This record gives sequence, structure tokens and C-alpha cells, in this order.
Amino acid sequence: MFSNKLSIVDTTLREGEQFYNANFSQKDKIKIATQLSDFGVEYIELTSPCVSSQSKKDCQVISRMGLKSKILAHIRCLKEDVITAIDTGVAGINLFSRVSLSHDRFGLGPQMSQTLEKILDVLSFARANAPELEIRFSLEDTFRTRIEDIVVIYEAVGDSGLVDRLGVADTVGYALPRDVERVIKLLHVLTGMDIEFHGHNDTGSAVVNSYTAFEAGATHIDTTVLGIGERNGITSLAGFIARVYSFKAEMVKKKYNLGTLKHLHETVATTLGIGIPWDHPIVGESAFTHKAGVHTKSVILNPKSYEIIDPSDFNASRTIMVAHKLTGWNAVKDRAQKIGLSFEDDDIKKITLKIKDISDGRNIDIKEVDEILKCHWEMKKVKT
Amino acid sequence: MFSNKLSIVDTTLREGEQFYNANFSQKDKIKIATQLSDFGVEYIELTSPCVSSQSKKDCQVISRMGLKSKILAHIRCLKEDVITAIDTGVAGINLFSRVSLSHDRFGLGPQMSQTLEKILDVLSFARANAPELEIRFSLEDTFRTRIEDIVVIYEAVGDSGLVDRLGVADTVGYALPRDVERVIKLLHVLTGMDIEFHGHNDTGSAVVNSYTAFEAGATHIDTTVLGIGERNGITSLAGFIARVYSFKAEMVKKKYNLGTLKHLHETVATTLGIGIPWDHPIVGESAFTHKAGVHTKSVILNPKSYEIIDPSDFNASRTIMVAHKLTGWNAVKDRAQKIGLSFEDDDIKKITLKIKDISDGRNIDIKEVDEILKCHWEMKKVKT
Repeated sequence: MFSNKLSIVDTTLREGEQFYNANFSQKDKIKIATQLSDFGVEYIELTSPCVSSQSKKDCQVISRMGLKSKILAHIRCLKEDVITAIDTGVAGINLFSRVSLSHDRFGLGPQMSQTLEKILDVLSFARANAPELEIRFSLEDTFRTRIEDIVVIYEAVGDSGLVDRLGVADTVGYALPRDVERVIKLLHVLTGMDIEFHGHNDTGSAVVNSYTAFEAGATHIDTTVLGIGERNGITSLAGFIARVYSFKAEMVKKKYNLGTLKHLHETVATTLGIGIPWDHPIVGESAFTHKAGVHTKSVILNPKSYEIIDPSDFNASRTIMVAHKLTGWNAVKDRAQKIGLSFEDDDIKKITLKIKDISDGRNIDIKEVDEILKCHWEMKKVKT
Repeated sequence: MFSNKLSIVDTTLREGEQFYNANFSQKDKIKIATQLSDFGVEYIELTSPCVSSQSKKDCQVISRMGLKSKILAHIRCLKEDVITAIDTGVAGINLFSRVSLSHDRFGLGPQMSQTLEKILDVLSFARANAPELEIRFSLEDTFRTRIEDIVVIYEAVGDSGLVDRLGVADTVGYALPRDVERVIKLLHVLTGMDIEFHGHNDTGSAVVNSYTAFEAGATHIDTTVLGIGERNGITSLAGFIARVYSFKAEMVKKKYNLGTLKHLHETVATTLGIGIPWDHPIVGESAFTHKAGVHTKSVILNPKSYEIIDPSDFNASRTIMVAHKLTGWNAVKDRAQKIGLSFEDDDIKKITLKIKDISDGRNIDIKEVDEILKCHWEMKKVKT
């Protein structure tokens, strides 16, 4: 499988609004949507226009911006929601059924027989009222739903010819990659349709699950900038890009404006009043920072020895840390050369020990390292 | 496979020192090691005593603390490092070979034939000089090494009888779960030995890869608190615990003092002068926060509908957010009941619309929601 048909459905402006700290204004949404479109995501999903009157206005305004990304509204599988969404001018609707079968097991939600009938009724209504609309249907919490129930519902929806694609959601971050692979391949065999994957991160599995879905044949992957969303969020855009890049760098470079990724993240982080978590792939503060002596030695010789992502593809640069107790003499030598000083290896090794001794007791910075190097350079000149 | 023999090798005080912002003092290390041991990790790995004189003293002091966790030193596969490590009194040494075969492909490092001879020589030396020492041998960057070279080296090391366990490292965050499964199972079949897995997070895959390693038969998993380490770090302790808990909650609850996990993270974050990233499983600020109306409605009825981790197992509590535009009337009704007010559903729905209207324009907080509810309560009393 592993189609080149990958589309990113960025849902920063829907799932991301479910982040505890998010309440995007229309101005925020316009700025973020513009940058998402410039980056090149194929779809932008917006908060349901049924949620509040402002949310409806936001859908209308963003649909008319003429962005390259297709604009989708995320709505419940209800006729009233379909009517409101059509009225906003969005290019597509991402319908989800509130009737996750897992909820039945928890004693919630209607029965199976009612579920399918109601779903098909709403889908027929949507298709009849908006023939050009791109329609996705998704069952919440797919991976805690009995496989036989998944088969019944998705096959019927697929056979109906009413929708453009099916959605699969790991709503609580439960699935393992093998579960994702199994369900995506099953739906592909059953329906032959495009499939969208949406994965939460409660167990730190969202990025790998999304990549696995893509490899197994999913055509659409949901992301948010910074991974924001309900609870601790979903697949992060940067994380997913990093994972795909590690195997298909050329495809990713061709499809997306990678040099804008960091700026997009800064925009969303600033809007939310939070920082970019340091551990975020690619855009985190230390993603391209090398520290331990054994690492820096090799990275100076060949960055690929400890990097599978080339920072220059993302308009970023690598940092070789020198001023700390784990430093190595190769890194110190490299630093000396950078500031125009050339020492014998034995001298560099002595200077390295001095840096280690100082940083054993307190933090030092690169300026102090430079001072030490310059001081030894002066001493060397005096001696010779 | 999937042994109950799981041991966590926490390397916050080694890999974590390679975090760009970390320079732990001895006092810091003692505090963190104590809390790690209280949490229940089976091993604590320390920065090589060969790195600096203070690092050596730290190994000596922490080895003598009488902690429940076994203390390991992480050292290069060199006789001089072995001598220094033995001298500190650590219970075990985690040897790694600098001679990753991937480096050969990048034009670095010695040749294959020299590599094995040198490794066995150092291991013989270590075993002869410290018969009681727990010895692990690991090849860096295992997953970019040719499989035939892995087989030659690990089989020879296994057959030598000189080490207690083998280590497998995804040094650059390259591996997919299927790669991890393949290599762990291969080494298990080849050697039958205990296997340790160490995974970096450059592509957001560290937690799932570690869980996959455990399921495939690895007995020891490397973690750090907050996932700190070189670049954007390795498997986070909380992430790994969340992932294992989702399938084997009873095992995790029995082995570790889960109620102390958050405090341990706060200690490390405070020491580093950083926050806990919001998206961290379990310990992130919003890990148990529910916001969208469809979510809060179900969570009020049954938390399992949108939670696969029970916050009470981690001495944490869930938050139902009410004061925002995505709110639902079930959440507002729940809030009203919590502050002792009881409304008809129709009234609650009107109040919910009011909350949505206000938060469409600006942020509101729970105090304001309470005021609105109280105001309506007073009006209701006047009317009746």
C-alpha cells in the first residue's frame, strides 16, 4: 500500500480548540488557517458551526478566504448540523457518530440497530442537499468497538455510495500500531475507499499510529500544530512530518513548505500563550542540539551519524554544545577553530579537562569557553 | 513472550544529563535518585564516572546510599572506563560500543574484525576484575546496523558468557515498531538472554517502540523522567507507564508507587527550571481534562467513555471544563448540581447558550459561570 495519496487533515482549529487553554478568535483563526495553507496541508478542519454563533461566522469567513487547503466542518451525524454546515459554504463535512459502540458497553448510547439506520438517513439527507460536498463518515472510538460491529456499519456506509471517505478514530489513545494496521487494512479490503485516521496521545502512541495507518493504506491523517486537543492531544503535525520524512524525505519536501513549519508552531504557541514543548520533534528547542562528547565528535565529522533529519530542510540549524562537563575534546577543538584559534591536540585535551572541572561545580556558557580558549592562546604565544 | 520480568532502567541521571539544559549537582542527583527509588524503578543509570571528577564522586556517593534501585554506571567499552567504574562501587556497568557499524557506512569507526576482538577483550577484563558486577553490553545505533553484523557480534558476546544482558539502542529515533519487534525476537532466539531497549524520540516513536520491545521479549526498558536526553530525548517514564498501564494496569500498580509519579516529575522539572510539557501522558497539565460537550456528557456518566487511565491511580483528579464555547448542557447541569443548584433541563440549555455567547467574544472562567448560575437561580426563585 503506502500510497502517495497522503493528505494531511489539520484540525488545529477544531480538535485544537478542545485544548484546555484554547479559545481562538476569528483573527487568530484567519492567521493560523493562512499559515496552515501556506505550509501546504491539504485540509483544514474547523470547529462545528453548531457550537456557537461565532463558530458559524468563522466557518463562513474562512471558507471564503480562497485558501489552497480545503475547508471542512466537523459536525455530529445530525440533520440539523448538516443544514448549518452546508449554510457556511465549507467544501466538506467530517461527520462523526456520537454512537460509539464502545459506549454501549459502558451502558451509554443507543442500540446497534437504531445506529445504522440513523446514520444512513443523515448521510442520504446530506448527499441530497449538497451533491458537491466532500463527506466523511467516522465512528468515534473505533478501536474499542467490536470488530463485527465495525464491519456492519462501515460496509453499509461504503456500499451506500453516499460518502467520499471513511474515518477511523482512536478517540482515547488506546490502539497499538498492530491494531491500527489491522483495522485500516480491513476497511480497505471491505470498501476500497479512502480512509482517514485520527489518533489521540494518552499513551504516547499517536504519531506512530498515524504513520502505521498511512503505511497500511490510509489516505488522510489528522494532525494539529503542537498536537493540541482534548486531554493531552492528538498526533502532532511536526511529529508526523518527522516520522514520514525519516522514510520518504523527498515526498515530504515536495508536498510541504518545510521551512515554514517552525514559524507556524510559534504562531500557534504564541496565540495560546504557551511554549513549544522542548521535546517536540523538529520544532522543539533542542531537536538538533548535540551535547555528549561521543555524539559531538561524530556529528562534526558527519551529521548523519546522530541525525536522521536534516535541520536545513526545515530552515533550522544544529547546535554543538561545548560548555558543559560531558564535553569532548573534538567539540572543543572545533569551537577553537570556529573562533580562529588552532591548538595541538594535547593542549586541547588539557583545556577540555579545565572546562569539565569548572562545569562540575557550576554552569558555564560558551562565552566563558571562548575566554578560556583565548587565554590559552595568549599563553601559547608568550611561550613560543 | 511479554514477560512479567519487566525492569525499568531509569537513566534521567545519565541520558538526562545529555539534555541541553541539564547539569545536575550532587544534591540534585541524591534527591532525584531517592525519588526514583521510592517510585520503584529497578535500576538507576548514572553518567560515566570517567566524564569528570565530580561525576565519579557522584557515582560513589549514590552507590552507597542503600537505595532499593540497583545503581549502574554507563561507560564506553574501554578498560580504563571499566577500572574507574569498578572503583566507584556501582552494582553494574552498562557498556556501549562506540563502534556502531552504521558509523562505518558513514566512513567513521574501526573495521568489523577489530570491533569484535576489542569488545570481547574488554568484557573479559571486566568479568575477571569484578565477578559480581552486573554487566550489560550494547551496540549503539542497532537499527541502522546491518542485520548480519548484529548477529555476529551479539551471538559472540552471548556465547562468551561474560555479560548478564544485551542492549539494543535506537540511538537516532529511526526504528519503527516492526523493526524493534524483529531485532528483539532475533536476539532472543539467538542468545536467550535478557535484553534492554533504549529508544530516542526524534520521530515521536520512543514510547511505542519501548512497549513493542517489552511485548517482544525485552526485559529491561530505558526511560528518563520527562523523556529528557540528547536532542529531543528518549522514552519518557510517564509515557511508558501509561502505555503499559493501558494493557497491564494491575502489574504496573503492583510494581510501582504510581501516586508519586507526578511529584517525581515536578522535582526534575523544577531542578531543570522547565515546566512539564502539557502534552505529557499522565503528568501533563491537561492529561485528565475534558472539554468538548460530547466528551464531558459521557465522562460525567462514565469516565471510562473517554479515559483509559484512571487518574485516581496516579493521585490525580479529572477536570470537567465548563466555562468555554464548546461546553455542553450536561456539563453545565453537573456544575450547577455541584454548587447546590437544581434547574429544569430547558433552563440549563438556555444558560448554556448564554455561556457560549459570552465565551464567543472573550475568555470566561468557572467563577463567572457560577455567578451566571446563581443569578438564574435567584431569578427562578423570584418567578416562583
